[in-house]
Amino acid sequence: MGDRIRAGIVGFTGYSGAELVKILERHRQVEPVLLEHRTRTEDETSFLDGHLQRLPWGDEALRDGGLAVVFFATPHEVSLELVPKALDAGLKVIDLSAAFRLRTVGNYQRWYNLEHNRPDLLAEAVYGLPEYFRNVTKVARLVSNPGCYPTAANLSLRPLVIEGVLDREAGVICDAKSGVSGAGKKLSPRTHFSAVTQNFSAYAVLVHRHVPELLLTSDVEEHELSFTAQLLPVHRGILETIYVRTAESMSYDEIAAIYRKVYNDEPFVRIFPEGELPDLQTVNYTNFCDIGIKADPKTKRVVIVAAIDNLVKGAAGQAVQNMNLVLGLPETEALL
Amino acid sequence: MGDRIRAGIVGFTGYSGAELVKILERHRQVEPVLLEHRTRTEDETSFLDGHLQRLPWGDEALRDGGLAVVFFATPHEVSLELVPKALDAGLKVIDLSAAFRLRTVGNYQRWYNLEHNRPDLLAEAVYGLPEYFRNVTKVARLVSNPGCYPTAANLSLRPLVIEGVLDREAGVICDAKSGVSGAGKKLSPRTHFSAVTQNFSAYAVLVHRHVPELLLTSDVEEHELSFTAQLLPVHRGILETIYVRTAESMSYDEIAAIYRKVYNDEPFVRIFPEGELPDLQTVNYTNFCDIGIKADPKTKRVVIVAAIDNLVKGAAGQAVQNMNLVLGLPETEALL
Amino acid sequence: MGDRIRAGIVGFTGYSGAELVKILERHRQVEPVLLEHRTRTEDETSFLDGHLQRLPWGDEALRDGGLAVVFFATPHEVSLELVPKALDAGLKVIDLSAAFRLRTVGNYQRWYNLEHNRPDLLAEAVYGLPEYFRNVTKVARLVSNPGCYPTAANLSLRPLVIEGVLDREAGVICDAKSGVSGAGKKLSPRTHFSAVTQNFSAYAVLVHRHVPELLLTSDVEEHELSFTAQLLPVHRGILETIYVRTAESMSYDEIAAIYRKVYNDEPFVRIFPEGELPDLQTVNYTNFCDIGIKADPKTKRVVIVAAIDNLVKGAAGQAVQNMNLVLGLPETEALL
Amino acid sequence: MGDRIRAGIVGFTGYSGAELVKILERHRQVEPVLLEHRTRTEDETSFLDGHLQRLPWGDEALRDGGLAVVFFATPHEVSLELVPKALDAGLKVIDLSAAFRLRTVGNYQRWYNLEHNRPDLLAEAVYGLPEYFRNVTKVARLVSNPGCYPTAANLSLRPLVIEGVLDREAGVICDAKSGVSGAGKKLSPRTHFSAVTQNFSAYAVLVHRHVPELLLTSDVEEHELSFTAQLLPVHRGILETIYVRTAESMSYDEIAAIYRKVYNDEPFVRIFPEGELPDLQTVNYTNFCDIGIKADPKTKRVVIVAAIDNLVKGAAGQAVQNMNLVLGLPETEALL
Repeated sequence: MGDRIRAGIVGFTGYSGAELVKILERHRQVEPVLLEHRTRTEDETSFLDGHLQRLPWGDEALRDGGLAVVFFATPHEVSLELVPKALDAGLKVIDLSAAFRLRTVGNYQRWYNLEHNRPDLLAEAVYGLPEYFRNVTKVARLVSNPGCYPTAANLSLRPLVIEGVLDREAGVICDAKSGVSGAGKKLSPRTHFSAVTQNFSAYAVLVHRHVPELLLTSDVEEHELSFTAQLLPVHRGILETIYVRTAESMSYDEIAAIYRKVYNDEPFVRIFPEGELPDLQTVNYTNFCDIGIKADPKTKRVVIVAAIDNLVKGAAGQAVQNMNLVLGLPETEALL
Repeated sequence: MGDRIRAGIVGFTGYSGAELVKILERHRQVEPVLLEHRTRTEDETSFLDGHLQRLPWGDEALRDGGLAVVFFATPHEVSLELVPKALDAGLKVIDLSAAFRLRTVGNYQRWYNLEHNRPDLLAEAVYGLPEYFRNVTKVARLVSNPGCYPTAANLSLRPLVIEGVLDREAGVICDAKSGVSGAGKKLSPRTHFSAVTQNFSAYAVLVHRHVPELLLTSDVEEHELSFTAQLLPVHRGILETIYVRTAESMSYDEIAAIYRKVYNDEPFVRIFPEGELPDLQTVNYTNFCDIGIKADPKTKRVVIVAAIDNLVKGAAGQAVQNMNLVLGLPETEALL
Repeated sequence: MGDRIRAGIVGFTGYSGAELVKILERHRQVEPVLLEHRTRTEDETSFLDGHLQRLPWGDEALRDGGLAVVFFATPHEVSLELVPKALDAGLKVIDLSAAFRLRTVGNYQRWYNLEHNRPDLLAEAVYGLPEYFRNVTKVARLVSNPGCYPTAANLSLRPLVIEGVLDREAGVICDAKSGVSGAGKKLSPRTHFSAVTQNFSAYAVLVHRHVPELLLTSDVEEHELSFTAQLLPVHRGILETIYVRTAESMSYDEIAAIYRKVYNDEPFVRIFPEGELPDLQTVNYTNFCDIGIKADPKTKRVVIVAAIDNLVKGAAGQAVQNMNLVLGLPETEALL
Repeated sequence: MGDRIRAGIVGFTGYSGAELVKILERHRQVEPVLLEHRTRTEDETSFLDGHLQRLPWGDEALRDGGLAVVFFATPHEVSLELVPKALDAGLKVIDLSAAFRLRTVGNYQRWYNLEHNRPDLLAEAVYGLPEYFRNVTKVARLVSNPGCYPTAANLSLRPLVIEGVLDREAGVICDAKSGVSGAGKKLSPRTHFSAVTQNFSAYAVLVHRHVPELLLTSDVEEHELSFTAQLLPVHRGILETIYVRTAESMSYDEIAAIYRKVYNDEPFVRIFPEGELPDLQTVNYTNFCDIGIKADPKTKRVVIVAAIDNLVKGAAGQAVQNMNLVLGLPETEALL
């Protein structure tokens, strides 16, 4: 026990942070240490968490806490302020916020109305989508953990983009549906039980902060993309229905072959056989990204159905996957 | 249209108030007038309500608004402040809050920690449970609309208490379950979608503000009653499972006969046949109180299962039923 | 009471049929008569329905039952067999099944694998979408009530198609989501509570029986349309997110003006103001079709968000609207 | 991998069986082997299970399958037929059905209307509630895994019964609420999504097959117990609200002390501090039984709120806990 690697967590009361703690409790080489950055409210305190290690956030914890890595499951403004301190203390960082996901300060100006003061870290940060950036993640100091919508969208789109089979003129339509945990724990009339149950609503049509991130990694152009974010009456899970056209007529087998080539050795991407499609229940509480394909060679239309658990592959699970890479541990530890 | 009776509504943005508006829109003799007591937030405003009549709350509306009756679907502190103004203006009042439900200022001290300054109105207010107080309601100036839990409990218990068949020593256990709308629209970590969905929790065990009201009308003594309030992952509906013992051995038929005698002509109480029990779906969106009975003559145990829609028979529907009585209209108008 | 018009209902135990009974119970000129076509199972029988009028289905009921109109909320095979009998008896018919929705026997062969033996009735049947076919419905003998998905899709698409503003090359993508009641009451592993709750799944991608009907009325061509049907963890409600492009750059105001021109006097279609979108809660338990619009003039993309209650405007409500037309009654009676 | 202990599972497609497979996949010393006892339906087959080991059920699997233990997650009739074969083959058995839970053939006659033909196995079977029967379980050949309702009820009641503090005259009322998975995967109108969502219903009042089992272990007498089983609109979880009276006036601290003495070293029972109560979210996806206490010394009333995940501590988790005991492995392996 005593010789396990210690991983700090800032922001452990939110959904992603709590999920991170739960995953790390199953990890055989790493143990979680809660870094208390603010006073918890009564609702955030339970005797059930009494067994967890805690340290007050601060220089002392960073210097003498015996930590190897720190996770930030905090709002992007908080990450922007605190992450540099952890880096300065010589620790590795996995940031689950959007603070270091976009590459330019201009993007933060435009999409977040934020003066980003650390272009150096934007340049340094590695975008932690292991299926594409595993090698650079292994040697990274700062890993920017992908957003939930872009994780599913990029894993779905990128093989077709790379292979060059899309009809770019026809564009890409991503009709995305997410569970409520994607909106975080903050109270809002929109996440009151009675506003969500027996309901379904579109809350971001053609405009969403995840769009630049989605574009960045998928290599789709902004004018090509139509993105809609919708709220499902479920706690967790994302399903994206993605509509594209291929330049040439292609069958299920031909398209699936492209995905299988790219993801053949990936432990967390599963390509579904013809006629089967993933849903939230195939992925929830797992780190999988499940991908189903429906093709109509006659009209060259292709529909991709991709599902992830937004709190696992879309947040905490992928963060642990990245931590495993950063620390040189088996990539799937605590995740299968 | 123009010669319909005008009914004011204060507190029309909450669940009960909105339900009240909806019911009154179906009423053939009455039309709703929204009395705006405070500025609505953006979430409370929708173009869909554009067709409704509105007046700013105040002396002018009360004097010249052409109103015959005013509903208050407001917190009890607000009702305590505003109801007297409406009465002073010569209007009839149906108050959906607890402000005038208990008969003594002592009860408000004890259960609400409130200095009640209108003992005169406590004495005057009629407790609006039509099945028992129809006649006094018809001539009342101020009707105090019953709480949701007590409505179901009193309609279930009172026949057995009146008939004197209970083993009072054995006590009364009321295991109550309510949908989230019972907690109102106010934001709280307890009513966040993710805290409620796939969950069930007891939030008031042996202590609840509805207890004195429940006792008042059922004639059960405080030391006899054990009441538990629990939160169901549904928007609306209350189901109460009530455990009593009879002094003598009694069959389903004998117990049902007692209920049938009391409720024979009641339009909104339904006694279920042996072997059938009500549930939320038999009552939701209706003004019914459904009562099922299970008796074990061997052990003298009786279990009553009572269900109501907390927003209808437990609030807005019963309020309209009371309004119909107060205004001399057919009691079931807009409610069947 | 005795001089109300009598409307028979075949198939009153299903979701649409039960909804129909409930709506007709609120109707001031019409009363429902249940036509018992088969023996009900125990689960379909409740003492709560004891007050309803019943007649055994058959020649006697059709001839001497005093009926003016008969609704069929039955599977299409049953409708195909029984509807002609009601017509032969001189009654008007509103059929909620798909039996007479498509115009050619070829379509039934292709989409339903069905030998349709009544091309004469296909030719005669009026497609009961009142917003477009009100006048012919008024004089119809047989009204074919639209399917739920096509109702929302056609009301959304047709104004843009008629006005000729669409980029037809870009096609139409309809990403549709429906509550479980859309699948009917028949037991299936797919509609078991545990398979649906906390889940979301696509069950028909690029292929669905509602496609030909959708095409028929919207005047979109088959190769232009991409339709996906998905299952929401809710009981009722349909929301469709529809993606099109306009040939020329168009603003919200320009597009909304087209809808407002077409639906200006329609009692059941509401066009949402810019920035507001409908959801299931704005339409459930109502006969409205709510339409929201999001336009991006730069890319010429337009996203239409349309919502209906699949059991009301998508079935029983629209059926009553059609009955009102057929019987010369006020079109909105029992529906507002 | 090759030298792991092999555990067979009969009935792996049901909820408990599937949960068992999932738990065993996390086990470090044991690996699951699916024993195919009947042909799976299409709905029970998915390419996602392709990695699991399978053997056809039969003498060959039992003799040469290298199995040490077999789990039966089958209906009790099936267990009654198959369990003896596994025992005859010299294997240990954990049976999750009710086939061997009651001690006498008379009980099966009365509660299951079943001629039980193996009184010898009823006599031999160990009731697998580890908190009370750990020692005999360790040396058992046949472990009868407890039912879900009795697990929570017995863990809650037995300390008070043993300590002799209850007012036995006052009886025990157990108001139990369960998620839908407790009813199994079999299709029924009662478990259709639309019958359960936004609903809550009592389905067994004063009579339930779990009663004899509950009595057996808690040492409560039948005439003392009032048990109600109710259906929650959730997939998993049981919460029981249990009402008793103490013979003498007792405080929370005194009652909690009794529980703490009994469960002090138990890894899977948590006694909640005063003022905190468990709910489904504190136990779901865990093997914990959480117990909260509310006492009113004035009236001697005590309310116990107990929660378990019916599929884990109420079925598969407890079964693995029992397997760990039977095989001499660490009791909490795969369960924390």
